[in-house]
Amino acid sequence: MPTYTAPTRDILFVLNDVLGVAQSDVPGYAELEPDFTAAILDEAGKIAREVLAPLNAAGDREGCRLENGVVHTPSGFKDAFEAMKAGGWNGLDLPEEYGGQNLPYVMGTAVGEIFVSANMAFNMYQGLTHGAISAILAHGTEAQKQTWLPKMVSLDWTGTMNLTEPHCGTDLGLLRTKAEPQADGSYKITGQKIFISAGDHDMAGNVIHLVLAKAPGGGEGTRGISLFIVPKIMVKADGSLGARNAVSVGKIEEKMGIHGNATCVMNFDGATGYLLGDLHKGMRNMFTMMNEARIGVGLQGYAVAEAAYQNAVAYAKDRLQGRAVTGAENPAGPADPLIVHPDIRRNLMDQKSFVEGARAFTLWGASLIDRAHRSGDAAAEGLISLLTPVIKGFLTDKGFEATVNAQQIFGGHGYVEEQGMSQFARDARITMIYEGANGVQALDLVGRKLAADGGKHVMAFFEMVKAFVKENDGDAALKAEFLEPLKAASKDLQAAGMYFMQNGAKTPNAALAGSYDFMHLFGHVCLGLMWARMARASRAALDAGTSDAAFHETKLATGRYYMARQLPITATHLARIQSGAETVMALGPEAF
Amino acid sequence: MPTYTAPTRDILFVLNDVLGVAQSDVPGYAELEPDFTAAILDEAGKIAREVLAPLNAAGDREGCRLENGVVHTPSGFKDAFEAMKAGGWNGLDLPEEYGGQNLPYVMGTAVGEIFVSANMAFNMYQGLTHGAISAILAHGTEAQKQTWLPKMVSLDWTGTMNLTEPHCGTDLGLLRTKAEPQADGSYKITGQKIFISAGDHDMAGNVIHLVLAKAPGGGEGTRGISLFIVPKIMVKADGSLGARNAVSVGKIEEKMGIHGNATCVMNFDGATGYLLGDLHKGMRNMFTMMNEARIGVGLQGYAVAEAAYQNAVAYAKDRLQGRAVTGAENPAGPADPLIVHPDIRRNLMDQKSFVEGARAFTLWGASLIDRAHRSGDAAAEGLISLLTPVIKGFLTDKGFEATVNAQQIFGGHGYVEEQGMSQFARDARITMIYEGANGVQALDLVGRKLAADGGKHVMAFFEMVKAFVKENDGDAALKAEFLEPLKAASKDLQAAGMYFMQNGAKTPNAALAGSYDFMHLFGHVCLGLMWARMARASRAALDAGTSDAAFHETKLATGRYYMARQLPITATHLARIQSGAETVMALGPEAF
Repeated sequence: MPTYTAPTRDILFVLNDVLGVAQSDVPGYAELEPDFTAAILDEAGKIAREVLAPLNAAGDREGCRLENGVVHTPSGFKDAFEAMKAGGWNGLDLPEEYGGQNLPYVMGTAVGEIFVSANMAFNMYQGLTHGAISAILAHGTEAQKQTWLPKMVSLDWTGTMNLTEPHCGTDLGLLRTKAEPQADGSYKITGQKIFISAGDHDMAGNVIHLVLAKAPGGGEGTRGISLFIVPKIMVKADGSLGARNAVSVGKIEEKMGIHGNATCVMNFDGATGYLLGDLHKGMRNMFTMMNEARIGVGLQGYAVAEAAYQNAVAYAKDRLQGRAVTGAENPAGPADPLIVHPDIRRNLMDQKSFVEGARAFTLWGASLIDRAHRSGDAAAEGLISLLTPVIKGFLTDKGFEATVNAQQIFGGHGYVEEQGMSQFARDARITMIYEGANGVQALDLVGRKLAADGGKHVMAFFEMVKAFVKENDGDAALKAEFLEPLKAASKDLQAAGMYFMQNGAKTPNAALAGSYDFMHLFGHVCLGLMWARMARASRAALDAGTSDAAFHETKLATGRYYMARQLPITATHLARIQSGAETVMALGPEAF
Repeated sequence: MPTYTAPTRDILFVLNDVLGVAQSDVPGYAELEPDFTAAILDEAGKIAREVLAPLNAAGDREGCRLENGVVHTPSGFKDAFEAMKAGGWNGLDLPEEYGGQNLPYVMGTAVGEIFVSANMAFNMYQGLTHGAISAILAHGTEAQKQTWLPKMVSLDWTGTMNLTEPHCGTDLGLLRTKAEPQADGSYKITGQKIFISAGDHDMAGNVIHLVLAKAPGGGEGTRGISLFIVPKIMVKADGSLGARNAVSVGKIEEKMGIHGNATCVMNFDGATGYLLGDLHKGMRNMFTMMNEARIGVGLQGYAVAEAAYQNAVAYAKDRLQGRAVTGAENPAGPADPLIVHPDIRRNLMDQKSFVEGARAFTLWGASLIDRAHRSGDAAAEGLISLLTPVIKGFLTDKGFEATVNAQQIFGGHGYVEEQGMSQFARDARITMIYEGANGVQALDLVGRKLAADGGKHVMAFFEMVKAFVKENDGDAALKAEFLEPLKAASKDLQAAGMYFMQNGAKTPNAALAGSYDFMHLFGHVCLGLMWARMARASRAALDAGTSDAAFHETKLATGRYYMARQLPITATHLARIQSGAETVMALGPEAF
């Protein structure tokens, strides 16, 4: 069975050495001193290892079941959920006035990685709640916040997002769920929603659904959509629970993975709902939730890969098979461990250099969100808005790839369910799909984010790369191994952007046919930037005579691998983009 | 539920227009006239569509079960197996004297694609039998052939390959299964084998296991290994069945996919076995089987992708979501079909250009086997021996990728089991692992095949590419769109080979660290060559005034896509290879 140990040393390196959180001027960051953050991560790691990880495989095997309208989660989930509640983990980065601890989002993200690695399906019950809380915080009235938030922050109640219907996923303008206004100001919600993660379960007293529906008078398409709060159980004026609302679970979907999470078909049969935010502004309000949720999914991409990687390393050190081509390294044993073989190394280094780069990228992204929200920094807001589809799309594609590579280390033992590697691959697969399939992320990136505000955010990104390169130009080793490759990759990205600018206006397909490659190109440049920043941090630590030289030498070696072996693919993405839309769109639908 | 229609037009194009089978001088090829081969493929397509494909999802859901020592296959499998037997499909390319039809291997391969696409798990019962027959044909005595082959060719009995043990997969030198010689010339086989595909089932009267075991006196490691025929049920001198042999099923493995195939733990408890081929030459004899089996697995890689692709196309045409950026294409409907979107096209074209290139590559490989075996052509033998790890490793990696991409077209509907796309991905995953994990294929390619016979086979491959380019140099369109990109890619492959030659001798790790990239680089060059050959064939057909111009225009457009969008990645693989082993091997095992 797989095991998991939180990589606290690596997370702290990003927080302290790379992002320098405690030295940041963002309100609330000053208290993120190394001892304090280390204590939090250690505690999270303990729960992850002792409570969450041991339930991961069991949750996959047992799955959720619907009996007489009640959703039962796998054995042990309820106790684990109580432990999460008792630890107050959900409120870590939520406002104190609703019971949270008000730490920065970057800390919530760091802790989130640990919980997701340990048990992704389980953590989704909390993750969805967190997203719903964000939406109510952003758009709720004071009364709504008082009614819903304290119980949701404490996890007495959990939350969901209800968007998709059988005939509409990405294209929400097609949705049919109706909201009829009532005399008392509430609405009656009627319709069917599908693929609702954590849609119902037996671990909380109530489930608070956020539901997109059409109220009269908004017009066609997405313009008519509003967002509603629809509780599973009605809440009385005094805060106590009342009667069941007209919300029920149609069925639990049978999925490829994340079996521990109840993905439900939800039926709303004239259920009572309360308008959240402005009428007919539901799409905008939902997007508040979705950007944060998308970063959370990008995190899942690399967090599952981290767990899979740890187990692949253990197996590669343990499994004796074949001899090193350069001479036996375990001469007393019947064979050498797998890890002596160059192609096994190549595979493990691909995983390791991706996961560590992705972690830095995601935590940097989270720190931009803090800067945007806590300091009201519009530049940070614009930049993270640009990077969000990259974090979501690139990190989940590469995260799945890394997880499949980890499974590959096990050979046939990776294909049988017993070892748990299949589950990692099956679980990771959803991250490329939900919260906007990755093709939709690429479309968002190229079709909207790139040109937003006159393209100034992508320009700022290029300036940032240029400034970093210039600033460190005097360090010859850093220059040759990190800055030059980063510059080349960034140039490819600029050339791709230029191609879109020159061709996209008159031929929109020329830009959109290259959108997926652009998302990957951008992702590689971001990871290249992260590795350059990590390399600089490690070199600084080594220069300062760190007592942990081995850690920093390993960082540098891992970064060199990424720059030499991963980053060169930007040239291929650029070539694909520059080949334009012609070969992509040449065939009529009938030719497929 | 997914559907499947055999792509007979595409297969016939490769056989007739590209390979020109009926014009070949290989014995037996003259009868492969278009009408004859079309009739066979049509018949295979009919069984595939009507009998095999409808059982695919059901077989996945139901799986196999072991009850009181008996393995039960999913409902319907037994009847389908009877239909396969009645059609004589297994004997298609097997010798007439044992009940086969003696058609070339290329026809068996073409038909095999159709059956695998329709139901991979089901087809493995027959596929393993075919492999076992090949081994007995190559190494059996005349008496053994008479005893075992007729019933195996007819599928009254099926076959298996027993190599892997719990502690040894790739490194067979570690195996522990013992063979003790008996006075009557037979052996007593004792040991446990795992991951035995089609290990037991209820569809045939007997199962003939080919088992690797160590007989006394052969020495250490792989030298002591011999190959044995071990029947599930003893066969009497008159050919009738006798008592049960001491062979039993320990359990059926729970796997990620191919649930319709019983992957068994097999226990041999002093079971009676008969030496097949020379004593202590088991490894060599097993490899006879394995090369053919590896091409068969490469075929599975693209065959599953073909089935997934067909369903992705259907969904992309049917599912209405969003509007084309260039203006509504289905203005009367609520939205346009997915297929209007450039990124959906990009995805479908990636799949289509891969599958069609892979089909040509595999059928070309099969024709090389025919030339080697039927014409005794050593050059063909050497070339297919070189290409086998590329067919296996590259086509299964890319086949899985294509299948995952097909699943992606479905969005959330691709993740639920109901639509069947998850099954394609889960099934395809095994092809990268069994018959030698793809890292082992890369090792075989770079560590053995490349330098075999003084490197003359890879030289012959380069000469073939060069000759093709030269021969068609006068065709300006072909030159710009196909020959130039092929030349560039082939140059990358040569440069990689040169790097290995210059560095591999003194630093073996420098070659092995690049082995995986080399396998992919080689695969892309092969598909580039196939597309150039297909383009030439289609241009010839168009020049000759074919009545099927649309088909050939589509081929050319698909080929252009491959050359423009896929082939450029050879440069990245070369860059990775030329970065050497240093970054790959920099870290000690403790640093992971």
